[in-house]
Amino acid sequence: MAHIPNAAGRPSWRASVLTLFPEMFPGPLGFSLVGQALQAELWSLALHQIRDFGIGRHRAVDDTPAGGGAGMVMRADVLAAAIDEARSQNPDLPLLYMSPRGAPFTQDKARALSQGPGVMLLAGRFEGIDERVIEARGITEVSIGDYVLSGGELAAMTLLDACVRLIPGVLGAEESLAHESFEGGLLEYPQYTKPREWEGRSTPDVLMSGDHKKIAEWRRGQSERITRERRPDLLRSKSDG
Amino acid sequence: MAHIPNAAGRPSWRASVLTLFPEMFPGPLGFSLVGQALQAELWSLALHQIRDFGIGRHRAVDDTPAGGGAGMVMRADVLAAAIDEARSQNPDLPLLYMSPRGAPFTQDKARALSQGPGVMLLAGRFEGIDERVIEARGITEVSIGDYVLSGGELAAMTLLDACVRLIPGVLGAEESLAHESFEGGLLEYPQYTKPREWEGRSTPDVLMSGDHKKIAEWRRGQSERITRERRPDLLRSKSDG
Repeated sequence: MAHIPNAAGRPSWRASVLTLFPEMFPGPLGFSLVGQALQAELWSLALHQIRDFGIGRHRAVDDTPAGGGAGMVMRADVLAAAIDEARSQNPDLPLLYMSPRGAPFTQDKARALSQGPGVMLLAGRFEGIDERVIEARGITEVSIGDYVLSGGELAAMTLLDACVRLIPGVLGAEESLAHESFEGGLLEYPQYTKPREWEGRSTPDVLMSGDHKKIAEWRRGQSERITRERRPDLLRSKSDG
Repeated sequence: MAHIPNAAGRPSWRASVLTLFPEMFPGPLGFSLVGQALQAELWSLALHQIRDFGIGRHRAVDDTPAGGGAGMVMRADVLAAAIDEARSQNPDLPLLYMSPRGAPFTQDKARALSQGPGVMLLAGRFEGIDERVIEARGITEVSIGDYVLSGGELAAMTLLDACVRLIPGVLGAEESLAHESFEGGLLEYPQYTKPREWEGRSTPDVLMSGDHKKIAEWRRGQSERITRERRPDLLRSKSDG
């Protein structure tokens, strides 16, 4: 199914998600441009209920942490069974575990993933997952930011949204990707629209000048200023890399 | 409504969201612990449809960027009207705009927000919003990570999830907050659960020793090692601060 070319003549970009809450999906990903792209089969979404691989009559997926402590830990054997089943359907997708311990997800990573066949995401719950399944199944941990969520599902949706909008054909005007934040390592310049005057505040004259070279220079300068003021770390990592 | 104490004897923590897609909410926030907390009125969610403040017969909310360029920009006058209405209901909430140009959202900020009365979030769409409304309404820009989303709604949900789970009474065992990532500026140590042996991989002996002091030392050492290996920037910012 997933390998049949869509209307755009390309195979769908494939998302595969392992979760205890498949009913959360597509959720916000079913709306607007990303939702229309799902309907148009520019991307596809396969959901795997981890509990289907749970143990015993109660389909247990977790147990107490070895060494003690609060909360519950998701079992390696249960997760491995779920992963092996999901991989049998999409063996070529990179497998990422949404975790605050992971490498930070960035726009560069979104772009790289969007240019591949798709992604398989493991959304955990509780205190985390047994470390051995991470090692045994070669899972890459990825973090959408330096905060803790109640589960990996919102992180998975966030990662998918960032990737899907970069798939060719999803955004109306591909050109509009060229000037957004993180392209060229800079934050986006300030935007203005009508009315020209509002509550005593004017749109900068340069933007009304019709001089495209001056406008481009002003925008570049604003991007550099805002990045320097707000996120000097982005400029440093740019010069490092 | 929002100020009436809930079953826990406290006023609800209040979330107010301005969006073109109120039907996306509560969405993922309606499930599991965060959803149960919403039902129990440990927090409340007010939604404001920005289009209700749109202009003309078509309720336009956006227009072309001043100075040219792709995409559309949300109008300052429309957003200001929506914000002023939302603020009349919740005048005490800080107003944040979800934007990749914003200051990074962190666990410390989630904790600070969770200890306040709540938060008002502006979820944008298109190329962004007219800069003048940011200045005129004293809006703080906040970013959940260094990537671009198709809209601010998933970012708003992510921020709310991180905050709500920290509200007293939302998580079962409050103790389990003490050892998670970013507490003490470190990433979380590896977790293990049953079975003790799995696919030839053993749970570390120290975790089975019953020696609580040794276990705590091992976990601390693992947290430090993982943070040093994966996120030396967290250790740097800790020593800076």
